Amino acid sequence: MIENVAGITPDGKGGLERFEALLIGEDGRIREVYHKGEKPPERVAYKLDGKGRVLVPGMIDAHVHVMGTGFARMTLDLSGTKSLDEALARIAAYAAAHPDVPWLLGGGWNQVDWGLGRMPTAAELDQATGGRPAWLTRVDGHAGWANSAALAAAGISAATADPAGGQIVRRDGGKAPAGVLVDGAVPLVAGKVPPPRASDLDTAFAEAQLVFLKNGVTAVADMGTTIEAWQAFRRAADLGNLRVRIVSYAAGVDDMALIGGPGPSPWLYDDRLKLAGVKLYLDGALGSSGAWLKSSYADAPGTTGLPTMSDTKLGNLMSRAAIDRFQVAVHAIGDKANAAVLSAIDELSHTYTGDRRWRIEHAQIVDPADIARFGQHGVIASMQPQHEASDRIMAEARLGPDRLAGAYAWKSLAASGTTLAFGSDTPVEPPAPFVGLAVAISRQGADGQPAGGWQPQERLTLPQALAAYTTGAAYAMFAEDRLGRLARGMRADFLFVDRDPTTATPETLRQTRVLETWINGQKAWDASKDAAKDEAKSAGR
Amino acid sequence: MIENVAGITPDGKGGLERFEALLIGEDGRIREVYHKGEKPPERVAYKLDGKGRVLVPGMIDAHVHVMGTGFARMTLDLSGTKSLDEALARIAAYAAAHPDVPWLLGGGWNQVDWGLGRMPTAAELDQATGGRPAWLTRVDGHAGWANSAALAAAGISAATADPAGGQIVRRDGGKAPAGVLVDGAVPLVAGKVPPPRASDLDTAFAEAQLVFLKNGVTAVADMGTTIEAWQAFRRAADLGNLRVRIVSYAAGVDDMALIGGPGPSPWLYDDRLKLAGVKLYLDGALGSSGAWLKSSYADAPGTTGLPTMSDTKLGNLMSRAAIDRFQVAVHAIGDKANAAVLSAIDELSHTYTGDRRWRIEHAQIVDPADIARFGQHGVIASMQPQHEASDRIMAEARLGPDRLAGAYAWKSLAASGTTLAFGSDTPVEPPAPFVGLAVAISRQGADGQPAGGWQPQERLTLPQALAAYTTGAAYAMFAEDRLGRLARGMRADFLFVDRDPTTATPETLRQTRVLETWINGQKAWDASKDAAKDEAKSAGR
Repeated sequence: MIENVAGITPDGKGGLERFEALLIGEDGRIREVYHKGEKPPERVAYKLDGKGRVLVPGMIDAHVHVMGTGFARMTLDLSGTKSLDEALARIAAYAAAHPDVPWLLGGGWNQVDWGLGRMPTAAELDQATGGRPAWLTRVDGHAGWANSAALAAAGISAATADPAGGQIVRRDGGKAPAGVLVDGAVPLVAGKVPPPRASDLDTAFAEAQLVFLKNGVTAVADMGTTIEAWQAFRRAADLGNLRVRIVSYAAGVDDMALIGGPGPSPWLYDDRLKLAGVKLYLDGALGSSGAWLKSSYADAPGTTGLPTMSDTKLGNLMSRAAIDRFQVAVHAIGDKANAAVLSAIDELSHTYTGDRRWRIEHAQIVDPADIARFGQHGVIASMQPQHEASDRIMAEARLGPDRLAGAYAWKSLAASGTTLAFGSDTPVEPPAPFVGLAVAISRQGADGQPAGGWQPQERLTLPQALAAYTTGAAYAMFAEDRLGRLARGMRADFLFVDRDPTTATPETLRQTRVLETWINGQKAWDASKDAAKDEAKSAGR
Repeated sequence: MIENVAGITPDGKGGLERFEALLIGEDGRIREVYHKGEKPPERVAYKLDGKGRVLVPGMIDAHVHVMGTGFARMTLDLSGTKSLDEALARIAAYAAAHPDVPWLLGGGWNQVDWGLGRMPTAAELDQATGGRPAWLTRVDGHAGWANSAALAAAGISAATADPAGGQIVRRDGGKAPAGVLVDGAVPLVAGKVPPPRASDLDTAFAEAQLVFLKNGVTAVADMGTTIEAWQAFRRAADLGNLRVRIVSYAAGVDDMALIGGPGPSPWLYDDRLKLAGVKLYLDGALGSSGAWLKSSYADAPGTTGLPTMSDTKLGNLMSRAAIDRFQVAVHAIGDKANAAVLSAIDELSHTYTGDRRWRIEHAQIVDPADIARFGQHGVIASMQPQHEASDRIMAEARLGPDRLAGAYAWKSLAASGTTLAFGSDTPVEPPAPFVGLAVAISRQGADGQPAGGWQPQERLTLPQALAAYTTGAAYAMFAEDRLGRLARGMRADFLFVDRDPTTATPETLRQTRVLETWINGQKAWDASKDAAKDEAKSAGR
């Protein structure tokens, strides 16, 4: 029994419900919720005094990269760098501190934040790395920056043609590779990077779980689970170390079949792990101009971005998954990509009937004419509020002023009847749901800009936004019967937080501190204990 | 409580012990064993009257191919064919009965049994198959027979050179491929066969488990577990359908690291699944003249067979496994291969100290001068008695009369201090431990030949042979603390059989019928019920 709490939960009908105590069974499920005036039983196996603190459901991050999140903590982190020089200084310091690492790996850079007006070059990177190969992925994961040694290791020269769906950025006025590779060209170098050791995978997974727990994330949808990652999840689970719930979308149909076999896995380890379906990609990202648009980029006339595959191939892959009842989640950023996925769903829905919950991941730039199509087949819009705040200036540059009505169009999509599932895309953005909630209700960044919010007509109410991080995200992973709200029979996943989100302003909501994270009725993280331990650990690395 | 039984179990000290009742806990472990004159408690949760039947430990098959065993039941089975014509007739019948199968697959043929004096040809196979590709593996799995369509699909022509460690058998007096591919050449065609669907894997695994249960095999060492097979095992286990205990030796170091990560897995699913280590191959088989001999084949002067890799590579692979405490099992058939593995172990034992239990799989032909080396580092001889009976005439032809002293030399190896672990190599031989026991004590085949036994000085006593199928096989998989004999604290895996093996003759021992197979204190198979069901199922296929 957890009593004396200021409990808040989505009621599953679009509103919020308040309660004062939770009775939790030994199986980790909620046996009863006690509201104001309802007297909890005196005799229970144990009691915990919540001391009046605010208790909310565990947050569900509907779009993460679990292993990427862990590896981002183990490799060079260029996020937040404000100039190329700052980035190069950080790279040089990392290289000096890690003389035994065969490849210098990392990511998080964004040339837009550097005000560079172009992509960085291999020659610039060479200054910081010397002759050791280096490979640094862009913040969105859709491009990578190689130094000369890495280009050489991959055999990329002026004679190398752009691979399908990809681009080798060339030096001014020539054919020589400049250093950055986009989308379909990324594997040319990424494929040469030595694979991580199994123990690295396990360490990365442990790091990722810690990040989620600290941020109050109790369940995630892992977008692009490889067999290697799946094995790491199971290894942890077999030793009792799987804490955060993971619903996996396999990295393509081969890993889907390898992991799931003839269909989705059952829920494993007390509902902590499940393979639900497959993650497919139809286009790239807006920042690297890889998103597939209906008409030209405003800042690159004549260029519309690239699909990663034909409509036929997309349909075939979706079909291969759907025939075995795997759930399909397709990455689509540009308006053309979104339209193409919607058309594919339209087509496939005739054959694959029933409750399919097709997911579009990001649904970032949607032609307003297509918004209504989301509601038609119960398509789920899996979106990331933090992207709006981080990318709005870049988006304006890429799209121009006339295509912003369907950009990060949360309210319009919700109005079309789609279910919103919110996430972070970590490691692209930190898995910080209270930051996401603040953005979702304000369309403003940490700096409060722009005043009044960007395209403010797309703001959500707090109950709407909270639902997208809880009941909506649970529904999107076929878990609404066990996760997403605090009610009888549901898993007891909840947080103690330091403020009431329903009365917070966007500024204060963003600063919400998670005090304790509970999963399955067990305390999985405690800020007062783990913060000190975590700092000590970080200092020792 | 299982009472009123004629219980027999190895006592763990080389002898046998008799008992009358077993008390089994709810956890599937034996709580107490009651011997003659010891009175079991009256009040127990349940009682089963054994009706005086003979009860022995579940048999452990120390060398199986689980998925191969299942697939052998789903594909064309040529075992037992006595002539090429008989085989071709069976192939033609299978092809006619399966018009929708894209590739005709199967195995179990042995050209020695056909009295052919040569390998069969693609042209002969074409007569039975028509233009559909066909690929039929030899009984030992070390060679395959392709038809013209399969050779064409693999692009094999007169211009194709023999790959490393392999041979493309050529047509008389020419370079054109004849049809059979040996060892390192096998993947040329095998790699073109469409992979099985996940549902086929699950069906094959279910078939394999049934075969084991019917034969009284309660635990197996799977030699060469792929990630696909491991996933099938886990899928079954996650649904509660894993019944037989499997200890896996991964199919090479890549699958080892993928499955196990930084080390062997823990025991999973109530001790029903574990990844222990890796299976490596150093040579081929004697039948296909792929075994690596110290001096020439008697029937092929100038030919000594082939190692699949250099000593350096073998050492490197063994080292890569041992450094992470994976157990190493190396296939070695020929005397040269056995000597090379023993030398590698000798070398590595300086670095990788402690209880390693290096395994040599088959140890079929050992130079008598090397036998003593097995005892030196606690090397385990994982051998298959049935091979001796099936292959003795072929072995005489390959080796000549002067190299038989170290062939299937069970007694000599045991005397050297090695632990014997016996198995079947199913699907090469049926997983029939009572047949194996009969051969082990008689060195005779089902026909009672040769009179007095072949190289009879290598016969074992029944307690020795039984130990090799129970305590020895358990020790070989690091499971002697839970499997292999019936004693307090051990898993309650046992069989009811229709006769007392200690008083049976080789002829009657071979005919032992398994009445019931129990695993973890639960009945997993019952001849009186499942035989009828099984027949009905087979008839319907």
